[in-house]
Amino acid sequence: MPKAPRHNIEAGPLITLTTDFGHESPYVAAMKGVILGIQPAARLLDLSHAIPPQDIRHAAYFLAAALPYFPAGLLHVIVVDPGVGTERALLYVEISGHRLLAPDNGCWTWLPGVPDRVIRLSEPRYWRPVVRPTFHGRDILAPVAAHLSGGLDPAKLGPVVHSWVRLEMPLPRQGPNAWQGEIIFVDHFGNLISNIPADPAWPAPAILTVGKRTLRRGFRWVRTYGEAAPGSLVALISSTGTLEIAVVQGNAAKRLGARVGTAIAMGWGR
Amino acid sequence: MPKAPRHNIEAGPLITLTTDFGHESPYVAAMKGVILGIQPAARLLDLSHAIPPQDIRHAAYFLAAALPYFPAGLLHVIVVDPGVGTERALLYVEISGHRLLAPDNGCWTWLPGVPDRVIRLSEPRYWRPVVRPTFHGRDILAPVAAHLSGGLDPAKLGPVVHSWVRLEMPLPRQGPNAWQGEIIFVDHFGNLISNIPADPAWPAPAILTVGKRTLRRGFRWVRTYGEAAPGSLVALISSTGTLEIAVVQGNAAKRLGARVGTAIAMGWGR
Amino acid sequence: MPKAPRHNIEAGPLITLTTDFGHESPYVAAMKGVILGIQPAARLLDLSHAIPPQDIRHAAYFLAAALPYFPAGLLHVIVVDPGVGTERALLYVEISGHRLLAPDNGCWTWLPGVPDRVIRLSEPRYWRPVVRPTFHGRDILAPVAAHLSGGLDPAKLGPVVHSWVRLEMPLPRQGPNAWQGEIIFVDHFGNLISNIPADPAWPAPAILTVGKRTLRRGFRWVRTYGEAAPGSLVALISSTGTLEIAVVQGNAAKRLGARVGTAIAMGWGR
Repeated sequence: MPKAPRHNIEAGPLITLTTDFGHESPYVAAMKGVILGIQPAARLLDLSHAIPPQDIRHAAYFLAAALPYFPAGLLHVIVVDPGVGTERALLYVEISGHRLLAPDNGCWTWLPGVPDRVIRLSEPRYWRPVVRPTFHGRDILAPVAAHLSGGLDPAKLGPVVHSWVRLEMPLPRQGPNAWQGEIIFVDHFGNLISNIPADPAWPAPAILTVGKRTLRRGFRWVRTYGEAAPGSLVALISSTGTLEIAVVQGNAAKRLGARVGTAIAMGWGR
Repeated sequence: MPKAPRHNIEAGPLITLTTDFGHESPYVAAMKGVILGIQPAARLLDLSHAIPPQDIRHAAYFLAAALPYFPAGLLHVIVVDPGVGTERALLYVEISGHRLLAPDNGCWTWLPGVPDRVIRLSEPRYWRPVVRPTFHGRDILAPVAAHLSGGLDPAKLGPVVHSWVRLEMPLPRQGPNAWQGEIIFVDHFGNLISNIPADPAWPAPAILTVGKRTLRRGFRWVRTYGEAAPGSLVALISSTGTLEIAVVQGNAAKRLGARVGTAIAMGWGR
Repeated sequence: MPKAPRHNIEAGPLITLTTDFGHESPYVAAMKGVILGIQPAARLLDLSHAIPPQDIRHAAYFLAAALPYFPAGLLHVIVVDPGVGTERALLYVEISGHRLLAPDNGCWTWLPGVPDRVIRLSEPRYWRPVVRPTFHGRDILAPVAAHLSGGLDPAKLGPVVHSWVRLEMPLPRQGPNAWQGEIIFVDHFGNLISNIPADPAWPAPAILTVGKRTLRRGFRWVRTYGEAAPGSLVALISSTGTLEIAVVQGNAAKRLGARVGTAIAMGWGR
């Protein structure tokens, strides 16, 4: 892919926001206000404010499927934080060139790579003067993000730490002529994304199991949705390279009563 | 309208995004990451990510009602793409000064004007190295948008084409003392937008038909919602100049059981 | 909090948008197009487009909880406007350093401070040439915002006015060993935000009343959600300093059947 001629523009520093705050509440707006109050040139980019409430696993999949596509150096602020105000830490993380601010609940730990540096935020001089225990996104993460985007040395934020909460990633198992795994994400279309690594060279599988349902017929192995008629149940390779189950122009999660954690298996035997 | 004194700023190139990806899934974020990876100064502007899944007609109305208000030269990326990964083309379109990237499914063909140039994207050097058949938004449209916003000559993207999918726009019919048409859009408030061109000089109609309901009384002909009491059924001229049916501070779609495609008629006779 | 080293960038003027237009409809996009058509360097920032339809009180709480965190001088456009097209005025307001454009329905009047200047928009030369009575956001507020952000003297927009619609803020009452108030906001998590000012020095209350329910046990007085087990009903101080009722990792509004306007009381007696 050739290099694009780049606009020679002094654009403000980019800060992305990913939260479970929804769109009706004033919380996202308050965070944006705090950032802009410190760093008026910041470019704020919404990734999502529709992470389901307190759903750390959803956030983990979301970040792992989205952040690797961003260029290095951007600052990503994540607020999915059921432990807000408790003793859980808030972290600054450098991993694979990305810079994150997030609660220490494992939400970032499905990102590929090993962190180069993890710092526990402990220096209140970069926080808002009054910190409410229920809104660290506004009172700690937002001002710290603004300071970092202005060039603050992260080392000033607090001590380097060497342990943090890791979110277990459920691992698939490979058997003779079969793979077993589980649904790790249900997308907006109701498509079921599994943790089973899929290979374009696979022949069409003979058996598909989703939860308690075993299908020998009634599904098709396709490259993409449009290869089967609307309403068809299809198995294919997801945009992140894992086995996906979908209903063409329909909702596989509803059709199959499946959700995150539902067991899935596929096999080529009888 | 006088010209505003313009800020003399080298602002980054604007790219708007319209998709049916929703806000919970990582797909929009992945596209933003890809664009910024190629063109870090790009200014990304969300138009909507709440087009109903695979709803090309919804997208077509949305674009026709929104894009004409934008200044010429911006780049609009549209991903409502039930045929992703199949043989359907991806297009670069210049129409009425607007520049679009969209699947060839007709979603842009309700825009006013005749396209000046339509190009079929066929040059993989401007795509991501690996193209997944289920996510051309991320792997083809996003990088192409970034390259175009950096000044790439669109002619390099592929061959000019002279035919494309056109989405049929249902036409209203005018009879003696009556108009017949259909609902072409239901908005967020449940207001029913029809395809019947409406004239502020019209006298109050005597009969309104929505689906199987015929109303001779029970609705009012108004200039705007607030002219009738909350809960009233009103007929008025929509913000795009067509006949609209609304319930003041309520939801006409629910009240009347109407949706896109529902027949609508109004008359001045008996 | 130390000053951040600021990027020395000529960033475009910031305009925030808060509406009840939702994300499926083309209305927000049309407003963005109009603004950019006049002021291409404008930086548009979505605060929310999910204010419930025509819900002025929701908008009033939202703005009061969000705008004070923004730096002075930004321009905030608010379109929650059940009276669109009627004789209700459209206002330009300067209050506590903030600049607002909003319908005269009281939606901005819960902001702290006394307005320094309120102007009634009456000068059509800064509007779109055709003004539809159902969409003043696009045809009046958007172009006026663009002109203001380009440096237009607000005095040119119309006459200064000295009266406007004020939205009554329900006041809490303090009794002996008790406070009585009401729910003034239900957030995305189902947390119930009241109008009772709360003090971190309070001892744990003995009685909590929400609507017709009186609880003597069954709730805990906590600093933050994570201090109680998931599913627990808790009372705490909200991020804006008032009494809040929540269910840890659950939805208090659903659990208690409470909504905006529901009476709430807490006491320390028997």
